[in-house]
Amino acid sequence: MDGNSFRLIKNDTGGTARAGELQTPHGTVTTPLFLPVGTQATVKTLTPEEIKALGLNMVLANTYHLYLRPGIDVIKEMGGLHRFMAWDGAILTDSGGYQLFSLAPLCRVNNEGVTFRSHIDGSEHWMTPELAIQYQEALGADIIMVLDECTAYGDSFKKVQQAVARTHHWAERCQRARMRNDQALYAIVQGGVYPELRKQSAEYLAKLDFPGYAIGGLSVGEPKEMTFATVEETVSWLPENKPRYLMGVGSPEDIVEGVARGIDIFDSALPTRVARNGALFTWQGRCNIRNAAFSRMELPLVADCDCYTCRTFSAAYLHHLFKSEELLAYRLATIHNLSFISQLMQKIRGAVLDGSFSAFRDDFLANYRPTDESTRFSQKQKWLKARNRGE
Amino acid sequence: MDGNSFRLIKNDTGGTARAGELQTPHGTVTTPLFLPVGTQATVKTLTPEEIKALGLNMVLANTYHLYLRPGIDVIKEMGGLHRFMAWDGAILTDSGGYQLFSLAPLCRVNNEGVTFRSHIDGSEHWMTPELAIQYQEALGADIIMVLDECTAYGDSFKKVQQAVARTHHWAERCQRARMRNDQALYAIVQGGVYPELRKQSAEYLAKLDFPGYAIGGLSVGEPKEMTFATVEETVSWLPENKPRYLMGVGSPEDIVEGVARGIDIFDSALPTRVARNGALFTWQGRCNIRNAAFSRMELPLVADCDCYTCRTFSAAYLHHLFKSEELLAYRLATIHNLSFISQLMQKIRGAVLDGSFSAFRDDFLANYRPTDESTRFSQKQKWLKARNRGE
Repeated sequence: MDGNSFRLIKNDTGGTARAGELQTPHGTVTTPLFLPVGTQATVKTLTPEEIKALGLNMVLANTYHLYLRPGIDVIKEMGGLHRFMAWDGAILTDSGGYQLFSLAPLCRVNNEGVTFRSHIDGSEHWMTPELAIQYQEALGADIIMVLDECTAYGDSFKKVQQAVARTHHWAERCQRARMRNDQALYAIVQGGVYPELRKQSAEYLAKLDFPGYAIGGLSVGEPKEMTFATVEETVSWLPENKPRYLMGVGSPEDIVEGVARGIDIFDSALPTRVARNGALFTWQGRCNIRNAAFSRMELPLVADCDCYTCRTFSAAYLHHLFKSEELLAYRLATIHNLSFISQLMQKIRGAVLDGSFSAFRDDFLANYRPTDESTRFSQKQKWLKARNRGE
Repeated sequence: MDGNSFRLIKNDTGGTARAGELQTPHGTVTTPLFLPVGTQATVKTLTPEEIKALGLNMVLANTYHLYLRPGIDVIKEMGGLHRFMAWDGAILTDSGGYQLFSLAPLCRVNNEGVTFRSHIDGSEHWMTPELAIQYQEALGADIIMVLDECTAYGDSFKKVQQAVARTHHWAERCQRARMRNDQALYAIVQGGVYPELRKQSAEYLAKLDFPGYAIGGLSVGEPKEMTFATVEETVSWLPENKPRYLMGVGSPEDIVEGVARGIDIFDSALPTRVARNGALFTWQGRCNIRNAAFSRMELPLVADCDCYTCRTFSAAYLHHLFKSEELLAYRLATIHNLSFISQLMQKIRGAVLDGSFSAFRDDFLANYRPTDESTRFSQKQKWLKARNRGE
């Protein structure tokens, strides 16, 4: 795998957190790593320069969305995804597995592949492991993902077992289908919340020697304790020297908890999505800038934050932009939340490197008021609807 | 008027176009000048730094909108409008006259002032010339406007005559109400499309020796020839040494025609509004980036344009962002259109300075396909609706 490798730099003393670095054809990125979500070849509201300035050097894009619009052939003709979106940093593309099973109407799966309808115009399409690789090679991301079968929270053991078997079969087909050797192909461990299936899946895929392993099928409605128990179980069966990627997880508290369990890579639309709803991160938890309490606050939202938004504008101005539904609001809030996550990743990494991660974690969680389960649930519902509009 | 003055630098040879410069407490700006519209204390989608980078050094904000939201007292408490919106360039605030008569529901006028309802929540409010000055002094713009009574296209001579008389009376009250002397107060000439009333209004206000004169009540549905005939008539009665500001006019072709008739200042939401609809300026006219013809265009929309959008992205990418309704689309299109207008103003000024404006105008109009009347009309209708949402 030319140009792609993972280097483990430090294991946390007495814990499973770790710091490392990922080499890609588009630069080296440090881990633990957060990938902002650029589903449709754009991290919503931001230019490539702004993403870089936030200290974020790898973004995620979705094969499913780009396949439907503008079409893989268009992006290929335009010189590939990096050039199309004018992003010279690293890119990871998701295969579309998760989107097929959660977003596309009328998805039918068999061992060969998936028939699905477009969420945009209802047209019928066909996806296989081989096509997922072909499309991702045409897009040209630095890291690409196998096509997997995702299950829902609540699915029976038998159904999940079948999906795991199919995911393994597809992972092997993805490996065989590759034509390019400059992209790293990561496997995805499935198995729902069943420890036995997670173990089976991790062990099976570990033997196939992928350069990286993702944990899929979590953060899909299960209670948080179950998410992290499953992460722990899965990580324990994954190889030590390969990067571990917890897909779709990205609230500040969940990132800290994920790192504590040995995760290296995260992605989530949450920081940018809640930003556009006016929910901004502070070290004490999320706060809603639409709240009247901010209407006359001359200070920035987070006094010691060095993001562009906080350096430049008062909380009162940000409040005004949100109340007035001004487009600049969504952009300034996105910058703040991604800057917060970027700072968080730096702090986490620093703590792992100097052996103080456990203290950092205790301190962070003692101050940070997590969003409660019912809010999380109702936001998740909103999100499921919103995704039809593209994120 | 401390810190505010107008200097006429050059009159076009054999024409009425002119080039000058306007000194304000927040820097010197060159004329002919275009003001981007920042109705709600933000030029939609852009940061202050981006506006500056476009070569635009003065923006317009609206007293009517800011009075209703966030409230004049909030902005005053936050240190004034410049500080609130983090803009250290010059600002012109409209008094709200135009908005009262075109946007507020249930507007009732008498000699004393105007009773109106908020377009946001229906609450009842009261505006007078004295309050318009008080509010604009609290906002702290560099140039402020008198409260005027606007008439609609089609209003009778008698009705317009009465509005003109009231506008004159109010202009004098505005002059007397001033407490600050660091802001330039501009008068507004009314008179609809009646040459006799325009002459009367221009002559009357000229005697009151304002530092600048605006032409109001145009571009409100009348045919274009009538707009420019009225501009010509009005300008002929205005003092030579004072800046002339044609309110609410700002398509590329109308700016060129306005300059040709002696106008120094323009403002309009048109360049930014049509940008958000995907209509982008080229030297051949507007084109719609949503058009399928752009879906595989690897070149930027305007090949030799040096704006950020054209320097960075292909037309195909911009097309994709618009089709996907991505927020970045509106921002990139806004940058392009304002950059186009900024370049246009520079070209116009250069032509006036070197005596080639007449040739420039002929050349520009020979290449630029203006938007036809029916498109203009239907866009105006859309705009009237859209304004209730804030522009």
